[in-house]
Amino acid sequence: MAEIEQKLSAMGLELPDPIMLPPGVKLGIRWVRVLGDRAFVSGHAPLAQDGSLAYPLGRVGVEVTQDEAYNAARLAALAMLASLKSALGDLDRIMAWLRVFGMVNTGGQFNAYPLVINGFTDLIVEVFGPERGQHARSAVGMAGLPFNIPILIEAEVLIRSSP
Amino acid sequence: MAEIEQKLSAMGLELPDPIMLPPGVKLGIRWVRVLGDRAFVSGHAPLAQDGSLAYPLGRVGVEVTQDEAYNAARLAALAMLASLKSALGDLDRIMAWLRVFGMVNTGGQFNAYPLVINGFTDLIVEVFGPERGQHARSAVGMAGLPFNIPILIEAEVLIRSSP
Amino acid sequence: MAEIEQKLSAMGLELPDPIMLPPGVKLGIRWVRVLGDRAFVSGHAPLAQDGSLAYPLGRVGVEVTQDEAYNAARLAALAMLASLKSALGDLDRIMAWLRVFGMVNTGGQFNAYPLVINGFTDLIVEVFGPERGQHARSAVGMAGLPFNIPILIEAEVLIRSSP
Repeated sequence: MAEIEQKLSAMGLELPDPIMLPPGVKLGIRWVRVLGDRAFVSGHAPLAQDGSLAYPLGRVGVEVTQDEAYNAARLAALAMLASLKSALGDLDRIMAWLRVFGMVNTGGQFNAYPLVINGFTDLIVEVFGPERGQHARSAVGMAGLPFNIPILIEAEVLIRSSP
Repeated sequence: MAEIEQKLSAMGLELPDPIMLPPGVKLGIRWVRVLGDRAFVSGHAPLAQDGSLAYPLGRVGVEVTQDEAYNAARLAALAMLASLKSALGDLDRIMAWLRVFGMVNTGGQFNAYPLVINGFTDLIVEVFGPERGQHARSAVGMAGLPFNIPILIEAEVLIRSSP
Repeated sequence: MAEIEQKLSAMGLELPDPIMLPPGVKLGIRWVRVLGDRAFVSGHAPLAQDGSLAYPLGRVGVEVTQDEAYNAARLAALAMLASLKSALGDLDRIMAWLRVFGMVNTGGQFNAYPLVINGFTDLIVEVFGPERGQHARSAVGMAGLPFNIPILIEAEVLIRSSP
């Protein structure tokens, strides 16, 4: 088994099924846009195992607690890895995480956005190690996210060109 | 006539005049920053034919309807194409749309941001075709956009180096 | 002395000490992620000389005035230059500023975000000159920023590979 998938497996983590959009939503985008040695990754939501949007929905600090939001950011990382595996064939082709933009659905007084997006970063750094996994990042509060998801995360990664 | 401009023309689309900033606004930025095979595109607003900000202004779901916002996202695509033509000389130099970040001025309960930013994506994919046109994308709700525009969209594209 | 540092010195500007996070905050990110000829720069807050968050905190147009916010954006530029110096060894390795994303903590009616983020752009263009310094940029209003800072700015720059 490939190195990164072995690591995920050893951590007891499973990648979700491909993204299922809410009924009636059609998007002409790509979840991962690969070109040369770069993969640009669309904003990913936290997903349930079957690829549907994970619960709870809502604003962090209002309908969603900080701990739930940290876990949602972990789920967004797993959703992104599932999309990357589908686009790249093999997660071992990911040489470096470059840039991560972590967006938190906000509404009240809560503003510890970096502690929420750590759910994403902690998982990626554990799976890929600090040299490949550590990235530049912003973690910010949004007035709204699609379909009231609590978290949305986009990224850019360096990849090994296909053999 | 160049391929992409021919396509725009066949679709009955016209590019707006260069961006006219509101009175008193001076910006030391570039609408398109070209370097090697990459063009980084600043956030573009929907423009009227004369390059001024298109109406209606306001928050989507409050002062601006979803249909008006979809159309505003189309206008932002045309504004971006006008800036790219001015920077690159020829739109045929655009080899691939890589990353799009679509921002929607929000305020009420509306959160179908992806359906609004589809106005941009649908036009780009129709003009460039899916292979060149499909991109990674996030579509999100902002607490505010400059001068109360309903939509702001930034992008990164792969270009053919100048001959 | 190196060219860019000489220029900063001639302008009477001093880079702040390394970023001091608020108590209890631990981040597995990199302030600057360098790979090949690119440096991806995490969102930077305005810093005081000792590396702590600069005052005032709050929303621009509510607790923070436009002039204070312009100055905060200058301080964010200096904080970013300090991180880049630490990551690159020498600021003269910065060949071009490519993309800047300027985020303004917002809440009231204020929406002249570009005039605020000009505090960053004006300083960078003065220090690096228009050819190297001018960048693609978006300047937008956020529902919240970490720890209630008024401004957060991320960037991507082209660098000369290490000799």
